[in-house]
Amino acid sequence: MKVRVFVTLKPSVFDPQGRAIVEALHSMGYGGVGDVRQGKYFELEIDAPSADAASALAAEVADRMLANPVIEGYRLEVEGAR
Amino acid sequence: MKVRVFVTLKPSVFDPQGRAIVEALHSMGYGGVGDVRQGKYFELEIDAPSADAASALAAEVADRMLANPVIEGYRLEVEGAR
Repeated sequence: MKVRVFVTLKPSVFDPQGRAIVEALHSMGYGGVGDVRQGKYFELEIDAPSADAASALAAEVADRMLANPVIEGYRLEVEGAR
Repeated sequence: MKVRVFVTLKPSVFDPQGRAIVEALHSMGYGGVGDVRQGKYFELEIDAPSADAASALAAEVADRMLANPVIEGYRLEVEGAR
């Protein structure tokens, strides 16, 4: 089962990489882009009997390895949830 | 309008970072995780008159700055598309 994990900095945490992208875009003439936040994206292929089990395992993995819970949050999406 | 951009390595490109994550997870006892691909995730706040315009601008930005079209592909999602 494929689970997508999106890890982003918490809204209160300054994102210097996103800021650098916005400034570069503005200097390239893309004034319409107001703000950019950069995060990480993971696709996990999980062997689990149900979508709930896959989601629970992915959440544990995200908590323990993929995200830093002090400054980051994450969101999960199970593909082909039955 | 918020546009989400997911940048991933093309399937034919080896992903050493994802491989390292899988191996670390296996050594932590998470044998149920078969494969991991890591990518980048961007949230763009775009000032555009329509979802189509926002999507077109985001695609241009992704092509020119966020993704390396030689080895990466990307996918867009416009939030609150009307």
